Amino acid sequence: MRAFSRDFQKDLRDLMRWRRDVRRFRPDPVDEALLAEAFGAFSLAPSVGLSEPWRLVRVESDAARAAALANFEVANAEALKGYSGDKAARYAGLKLSGMREAPVQLAIFSDEDTAKGAGLGRQTMPEMLRYSVVSALMLFWLAARARGLGVGWVSILDPDRLVRDLDIPQDWRLVAYLCIGWPQDSADRPELERLGWEDRNDDLEIFTR
Amino acid sequence: MRAFSRDFQKDLRDLMRWRRDVRRFRPDPVDEALLAEAFGAFSLAPSVGLSEPWRLVRVESDAARAAALANFEVANAEALKGYSGDKAARYAGLKLSGMREAPVQLAIFSDEDTAKGAGLGRQTMPEMLRYSVVSALMLFWLAARARGLGVGWVSILDPDRLVRDLDIPQDWRLVAYLCIGWPQDSADRPELERLGWEDRNDDLEIFTR
Repeated sequence: MRAFSRDFQKDLRDLMRWRRDVRRFRPDPVDEALLAEAFGAFSLAPSVGLSEPWRLVRVESDAARAAALANFEVANAEALKGYSGDKAARYAGLKLSGMREAPVQLAIFSDEDTAKGAGLGRQTMPEMLRYSVVSALMLFWLAARARGLGVGWVSILDPDRLVRDLDIPQDWRLVAYLCIGWPQDSADRPELERLGWEDRNDDLEIFTR
Repeated sequence: MRAFSRDFQKDLRDLMRWRRDVRRFRPDPVDEALLAEAFGAFSLAPSVGLSEPWRLVRVESDAARAAALANFEVANAEALKGYSGDKAARYAGLKLSGMREAPVQLAIFSDEDTAKGAGLGRQTMPEMLRYSVVSALMLFWLAARARGLGVGWVSILDPDRLVRDLDIPQDWRLVAYLCIGWPQDSADRPELERLGWEDRNDDLEIFTR
């Protein structure tokens, strides 16, 4: 069995500690070979029944980027209406996406109609397809961060509208929209915590049955 | 910014390559301190709006284990009916859970009613709560494997029945049932691939818009 050293375990913990949801990117382009290395994590990811349902779409054209950004802005304005007073002011002050700056943008879908895996493991929990996509993108996120690249996950989007606007096959369901690039800054605490939106809970409670 | 060496990047790739969905465990107990280190990954995980919606339940009692195992066996027998001929024979020959042997078993839920995060990032995609739970358990999976521990994700379960049988709060939704322990063997290829159920696709296709 491949074993891993205590030093590696500590570095892995550091990687998780310094992984951030990045919304502030430098405009510098990202080397394609480096990006391809990080994309390699997808091929190593777990998936239900080996279905590998992830479908990656790079959002590159001006038209596609404009559609995605408009989608975010509408959804974000709508979300703001759900807050009032101090919380509304705080929400309005948050930077919740790097879609204007991030050099690489990736819409990630789950192919809900894939025959791969022959349905194994998803009869009672069909959501396992989407969960497999999330599992894979987490590995990508870590592989990217290990190379200094920042990743930000934007979920303030109307998924059906994005599918229509980007002319995505009907059976693909949006799981994540990722902004990728060189981060402007670095921190071991989430921006939402630093800006007072919410605190992390360091005491994991484990229940027993 | 915390930087990571080329050696670390290679070890991380090895960790991903040797991570497996483990269904064959040795009966040896797992040291609680080691397990606690791996659980530490949850506190470092990303979550939508910092909602940290993961809820962990260790399934320990004979009654709880028997209920979970019976749940799996019913769902698995039902799933087998969906195959015929050679595929049915293959399915029947697969070992799809380590629930009889794994010393540690963990049901992981998403608290769909959490106030934490104040709803940020999940107005248009409420599934982000579940996706946050998946993100966290992937970090745990890697942290466990870096310590030699095997993890197996069982999804052949009726989630509602598990919630009832284990007396779980109504607002918690099952995301994963994990079997954890020392693996009997080690491989850099998935068991489903080795046994001919499905192949991995090594060529990641990336579409463009």
